[in-house]
Amino acid sequence: MPAVSALPQALVETLRARFGDRFQTGAAIRAQHGATTTWIENQPPDAVIFPECTAEVADIVALCAHAGVPVIPFGAGSSLEGQLNAPHGGLSIDLTRMIDILAVNAEDMDCVVQPGVTRSRLNEHLRDAGLFFPLDPGADATLGGMAATRASGTTAVLYGTMKDVVLSVEAVMPDGQVIRTGHRARKSAAGYDLTRLLVGSEGTLGIITELTLRLRGIPEAASAARCSFPTVEAASSAVIGALQFGLPFARIELLDATTVKAVNRYSRQDLPEAPLLLAEFHGGPNAVAEQSQAFGEIAREFGATGLDWTVDPEERARLWKARHDVFWAVLGLRPGARGISTDVCVPISRLAECIAAATEKAEALGLTAPIAGHVGDGNFHNLILVDPANREELAAARTYVGWLNELALSLEGTCTGEHGIGQGKQPYLEREMGPALGIMAAIKAALDPKGIMNPGKILVGHSAGR
Amino acid sequence: MPAVSALPQALVETLRARFGDRFQTGAAIRAQHGATTTWIENQPPDAVIFPECTAEVADIVALCAHAGVPVIPFGAGSSLEGQLNAPHGGLSIDLTRMIDILAVNAEDMDCVVQPGVTRSRLNEHLRDAGLFFPLDPGADATLGGMAATRASGTTAVLYGTMKDVVLSVEAVMPDGQVIRTGHRARKSAAGYDLTRLLVGSEGTLGIITELTLRLRGIPEAASAARCSFPTVEAASSAVIGALQFGLPFARIELLDATTVKAVNRYSRQDLPEAPLLLAEFHGGPNAVAEQSQAFGEIAREFGATGLDWTVDPEERARLWKARHDVFWAVLGLRPGARGISTDVCVPISRLAECIAAATEKAEALGLTAPIAGHVGDGNFHNLILVDPANREELAAARTYVGWLNELALSLEGTCTGEHGIGQGKQPYLEREMGPALGIMAAIKAALDPKGIMNPGKILVGHSAGR
Repeated sequence: MPAVSALPQALVETLRARFGDRFQTGAAIRAQHGATTTWIENQPPDAVIFPECTAEVADIVALCAHAGVPVIPFGAGSSLEGQLNAPHGGLSIDLTRMIDILAVNAEDMDCVVQPGVTRSRLNEHLRDAGLFFPLDPGADATLGGMAATRASGTTAVLYGTMKDVVLSVEAVMPDGQVIRTGHRARKSAAGYDLTRLLVGSEGTLGIITELTLRLRGIPEAASAARCSFPTVEAASSAVIGALQFGLPFARIELLDATTVKAVNRYSRQDLPEAPLLLAEFHGGPNAVAEQSQAFGEIAREFGATGLDWTVDPEERARLWKARHDVFWAVLGLRPGARGISTDVCVPISRLAECIAAATEKAEALGLTAPIAGHVGDGNFHNLILVDPANREELAAARTYVGWLNELALSLEGTCTGEHGIGQGKQPYLEREMGPALGIMAAIKAALDPKGIMNPGKILVGHSAGR
Repeated sequence: MPAVSALPQALVETLRARFGDRFQTGAAIRAQHGATTTWIENQPPDAVIFPECTAEVADIVALCAHAGVPVIPFGAGSSLEGQLNAPHGGLSIDLTRMIDILAVNAEDMDCVVQPGVTRSRLNEHLRDAGLFFPLDPGADATLGGMAATRASGTTAVLYGTMKDVVLSVEAVMPDGQVIRTGHRARKSAAGYDLTRLLVGSEGTLGIITELTLRLRGIPEAASAARCSFPTVEAASSAVIGALQFGLPFARIELLDATTVKAVNRYSRQDLPEAPLLLAEFHGGPNAVAEQSQAFGEIAREFGATGLDWTVDPEERARLWKARHDVFWAVLGLRPGARGISTDVCVPISRLAECIAAATEKAEALGLTAPIAGHVGDGNFHNLILVDPANREELAAARTYVGWLNELALSLEGTCTGEHGIGQGKQPYLEREMGPALGIMAAIKAALDPKGIMNPGKILVGHSAGR
């Protein structure tokens, strides 16, 4: 690992003079701004700065560009693949003071927000307008962070990922220049799609300072359905059948038997300890009833039991409790253990074989690694429970993650459906992309020739000071 | 305009030796491979070549790169902004012999096709599998061309644009290298979104040689509805209300009064000569009935009359006939005239004022320019009827198009919702993008340093021989 270099003294003095207490170098705040989730080693930045507007971000980046100092944008700190680490040192730009909701255009069903706004705060703000921001990645991430990592979550099967809901962004580029990738048109064929180039670039090409987001009308009705299956294969086949039938799932989640067992223990539920599907539909009252019933019929053809569905909001919350509890329930399976989260995404026809093989592999390696997945997208998560002091177990977990990613690629899938590359997935990105990685590197080199933008993430070998 | 340069003799000999009759230099075939739609001057390539596989495309591009000769990919020839012209000469690569449907994965609802496959041929092929490719840009374009121009059309309001349905592509890059931007996962957070960088790049960054496309299940039922409004503003307001209510239009089209008049004449229909909305819903029988009725209720609140709706396929075709006839009907308003098609896209809340101002401006300039639009996206088309021999009228049409694009930008819109930039929209792209245009130019220069990929399109100043 390259040595961590402290910031040049002149830069420190300039930033301290201008930003005062909004420029911080304490060890605790620095550590908190490195990777703190899952297993990736914490590599803190040299300092943290808290800009309050785009012009301040632009000035900070320009100063750092001049000094050749890396900059790393920071939102809620919830990314899972080391996106926030500072392997080459540098300055963490904490955007959580940029939390203005600049505009809500109810007729156009869009809004303009600063990057530090979290999705829950946006939804609170929107409720009275009858609108909502439909993506739900689990964590209450910032919208800037969600865009930067191309996040998605449980509702992506209907509403898409951040690539689908970000209409345009304002961003500070590596030389401090501020660009805008578009305006508020719902669609555009105007030149290269810089919006989608920045969405998912993990701060390596620019820092998103404003987002124009597509919103949705709060549906008139929503229904939830739940049922158990004898095997993951049967559950997957039921989902495939329902999708082919055209059922517009708003959510369709799969929990494997171990996850259900964990939920039962954690929440004192009494679910059959077998693969479980949880579905949700949004729409008119007749439509969601029709869809839930059609789902039930298809599910039964594939051996579903214990089918339960409702349109009542409280009942719906009860049915969904199993999914919402998963993270803490699984951690509860082994008190004191650390949860390592990894995700892959495969074509749905390969999902059952992928999960079956993963379960077998984890058992062979002596790992507890329950699975919960966004089955409509073929995307699933493993939460691997490890004792952080046990080297052998950590090594087994690493072996497992490497094996799982290779498996996903061999099944025509991707090494990450929604967590991004960061530091953790770099070896698999290379395998997945082949020569296309060279195109990514050429774009990075062209836009960030000094390599100051979040160096060491996504791509290796394009970083400041190398 | 730069002089058109003939191809180097050595290149001609190499290509003729290898491709025989599949390398053509006749004047007629060359003219047919330049721009032949709307008003943009035909600038034919120096030759046309017909590769039959990716390896041949790669070899052709590598040879042209070595010789510094421009290459221009060609599909159905239906682009509208001069994308196919050869202002710097060069070789048109006609992809219409690459028409294999390589795979249909019914369970995953995706397919893999070569770029010369047209959307109608794909849909014929898919029918027995109960699947369809949902985008409908009007023209029976090739799927490669639709991806290259980020096409969309009447169904984009529900199914999105090409950026949403292309899961990944294989492309030949400017040095002849073949890359693949992803595989068959429904979603991915793996690195820069090269799929979406190539979609809409109009052949200026690479030539798409294979596409993996998302498909949909043919809906169990579809309903169509039609109604007239006193004003475009009332019609727009009804659509806004319906979208806010959450009605999932599969199509929602607006025809202005002049267009309706043209349709009445052309098809001997008896529609009220007032703004007309045509809607379509896809889903279960109860859902589409509920949606059509809800649409009717909302429409009536905004003054709709003559409401008619049906789920019967033949009746549905009858209701939609007005929309399908628009192009020829409008041309029929002035026999012998040429139709100049232009498109802009604005936030839907600004659509009524944009259309009202456009109608007034066209009248003031003495132009006949009926409007039909994908109102759910805020995207509309003007078909301006001009006598190609009348210089004053052509000048007025140019004035009008420039004025309309500036208006769309002033309303936070875009200079093109779906036709692309090509040659025709370059001045407005610059106005729309500001400094972001420099980022596009940097990407172009990095990936295509010799400027051989469809030079003179989207961006000016980055072309071979300059």
